[in-house]
Amino acid sequence: MCSPLKYNYPLMFKIITKSPRSKARVGKLKTPHGTIDTPAFMPVGTQGAVKAVTQQQVKDIGAQIILCNTYHLYLRPGIKVIKKAGGLHKFIGWDGPILTDSGGYQVFSLAKLRKISDEGVTFNSHIDGSKHLLTPEKVVEIQSIFGSDIMMPLDECVAYPSTKADAERSVIRTTKWAKRSKEMRDETLRLRSGQGCEMGGELFGIVQGGMFKDLRKRSAEEIRELDFPGYGIGGLSVGEPKGLMLEMLEVSADNLEYEKPKHLMGVGFPEDIVEAVKYGIDLFDCVIPTRLARHGAFLTGKGKQIIRNSKFASDFTPLDKDCDCYACKNFTRAYIRHLFIAKEILPLTLMTIHNLRFIMRLMEELREKIKNGLI
Amino acid sequence: MCSPLKYNYPLMFKIITKSPRSKARVGKLKTPHGTIDTPAFMPVGTQGAVKAVTQQQVKDIGAQIILCNTYHLYLRPGIKVIKKAGGLHKFIGWDGPILTDSGGYQVFSLAKLRKISDEGVTFNSHIDGSKHLLTPEKVVEIQSIFGSDIMMPLDECVAYPSTKADAERSVIRTTKWAKRSKEMRDETLRLRSGQGCEMGGELFGIVQGGMFKDLRKRSAEEIRELDFPGYGIGGLSVGEPKGLMLEMLEVSADNLEYEKPKHLMGVGFPEDIVEAVKYGIDLFDCVIPTRLARHGAFLTGKGKQIIRNSKFASDFTPLDKDCDCYACKNFTRAYIRHLFIAKEILPLTLMTIHNLRFIMRLMEELREKIKNGLI
Repeated sequence: MCSPLKYNYPLMFKIITKSPRSKARVGKLKTPHGTIDTPAFMPVGTQGAVKAVTQQQVKDIGAQIILCNTYHLYLRPGIKVIKKAGGLHKFIGWDGPILTDSGGYQVFSLAKLRKISDEGVTFNSHIDGSKHLLTPEKVVEIQSIFGSDIMMPLDECVAYPSTKADAERSVIRTTKWAKRSKEMRDETLRLRSGQGCEMGGELFGIVQGGMFKDLRKRSAEEIRELDFPGYGIGGLSVGEPKGLMLEMLEVSADNLEYEKPKHLMGVGFPEDIVEAVKYGIDLFDCVIPTRLARHGAFLTGKGKQIIRNSKFASDFTPLDKDCDCYACKNFTRAYIRHLFIAKEILPLTLMTIHNLRFIMRLMEELREKIKNGLI
Repeated sequence: MCSPLKYNYPLMFKIITKSPRSKARVGKLKTPHGTIDTPAFMPVGTQGAVKAVTQQQVKDIGAQIILCNTYHLYLRPGIKVIKKAGGLHKFIGWDGPILTDSGGYQVFSLAKLRKISDEGVTFNSHIDGSKHLLTPEKVVEIQSIFGSDIMMPLDECVAYPSTKADAERSVIRTTKWAKRSKEMRDETLRLRSGQGCEMGGELFGIVQGGMFKDLRKRSAEEIRELDFPGYGIGGLSVGEPKGLMLEMLEVSADNLEYEKPKHLMGVGFPEDIVEAVKYGIDLFDCVIPTRLARHGAFLTGKGKQIIRNSKFASDFTPLDKDCDCYACKNFTRAYIRHLFIAKEILPLTLMTIHNLRFIMRLMEELREKIKNGLI
């Protein structure tokens, strides 16, 4: 059983403008569910919903793609329900592109009693303690059932700091798993194409290598060898200094084809995004804008502000006077502060809308600047 | 200081269709901020926000008026902030009509150490324990600062069950307070009109009388004597049997002018609304639809349903197949159940939208039925 064939092109990435000043570029990434203007930010919908906002509000903010977490959705509601619903897009009521991660990062950060071997990862669910085995093949299978536009293979991300031996081991395993993931994806494609089914999305390769330049280079070369249509750069923004992150980012990106789309996984502080686009990064995702909002912080041109601050009690200006979001066009800091202190739900929604729109406007500005040769 | 005069008509209520079968009627209630089709349901925005939804979503649901709580807004953020904002409409970003209650009911149900005398009510805030005195004059002053389209005078609501002596005392006090409220309102009007200011909204009278027919009649007659432009019927749906409520409602309504608008305060179960319109009730408010949503219950033509119920795990139909709300048009029970169990915020928003729209559709149907002589 599969959805009938609706399109027969693979993921397509077209670079529209190359910066004369850096590796930054403006592009268009075509996926089965729509085209994304890059560099792009992907709001995170961990459990199949961007927290505190509706799908309509996510669209209104200008988001063209969202990221969902394979680990969370695999455990709850489970692939049976999502398969029955007709895939993840239908299940969550989002008809735009979806990127799903591999779940590997969450296994390492959330699951209990995890055990890693060449076969895959065994772990106990953080929800009910149930035991699971995720292999590279299984992870591709899950994301194929989801119908994700962009899938990520299982990888191993080392903690920071790590020894070189640990980082090397993770590079070796990540490459092995990438090969198995690709084989599984190719096998799925062959099966689907023979049945006249939708081809589904594409699988990216992931570069690891800890904080070691030579390992980053080696990982990038090995993954590049496998000829994925795009790449994730993983294992960064895990606690290391900014300078080190950019150094690792540079060596990772430079050893991949310039022409292919690159996703800097989990990175989303405005200042990091501004730097990373210069190294040719096209996709970003991060929970920071949405999480900050729920904790009462909003982003402005002058930095992060805390809504509880008593100076906002009679401040009848918008969260950010330069912002065009629903929250800024209709409500004041004084009102949102009042609601936040009164423990209402609405201020979380309003600040989430604003923080996401803040990042979306940043992406729009960056694309403009690249087009105008300013970055 | 006041807003310039923008209109010079009082509250106007026009009965469009009278039912040939009951006292039910379809009407139009014109207020400074817009016209309301009656019978109407007012979503409750206790602290200046309808819980879990945006003002835009409240509008999209079809709500033409909301109710806010004077007690809560007086305590937090306080009248100083709301005055500085330019009134309640501007503060909360809602440009439609607002009815504010007197705060009396909340003083009796929420405040600590309350003491009632002919002067007014002394109480300690449930938020910080601070001591306050609310008099009938003060309550009108607060609502005038709010700029409410419909204001309610301070009244005394007796508990259920109560002795006849207690109920009689509350009727006497409610009438005395109604007179003082009206004088305060007239005084405010004189002042404002002399200054070329907006006239503000109108003050309703409130009928009490516990569960005693003769006291209900007496209260209605005394309040009617004061010639308010509309009435609130208070002290009902406080735990009494349905039959008794309707009996008290009937004697209250029948002793007021048929032509004036009537608000059955705090009543909002669908089955109660259907009955009450037959006695000539035009306005309803209740926290039930929004509160149920946040507790995971949604309204359908077949009664209330609990979203956690495992039978919804693979139910890919909308909350209510007959509903035209955003939640029903875009999402399934299975998805909303998943999000509710995963402790997301979105399902609270979606079920609030649905439950409110369910009541709005009920009001639309009732207006149609009255027009067609079916009620």
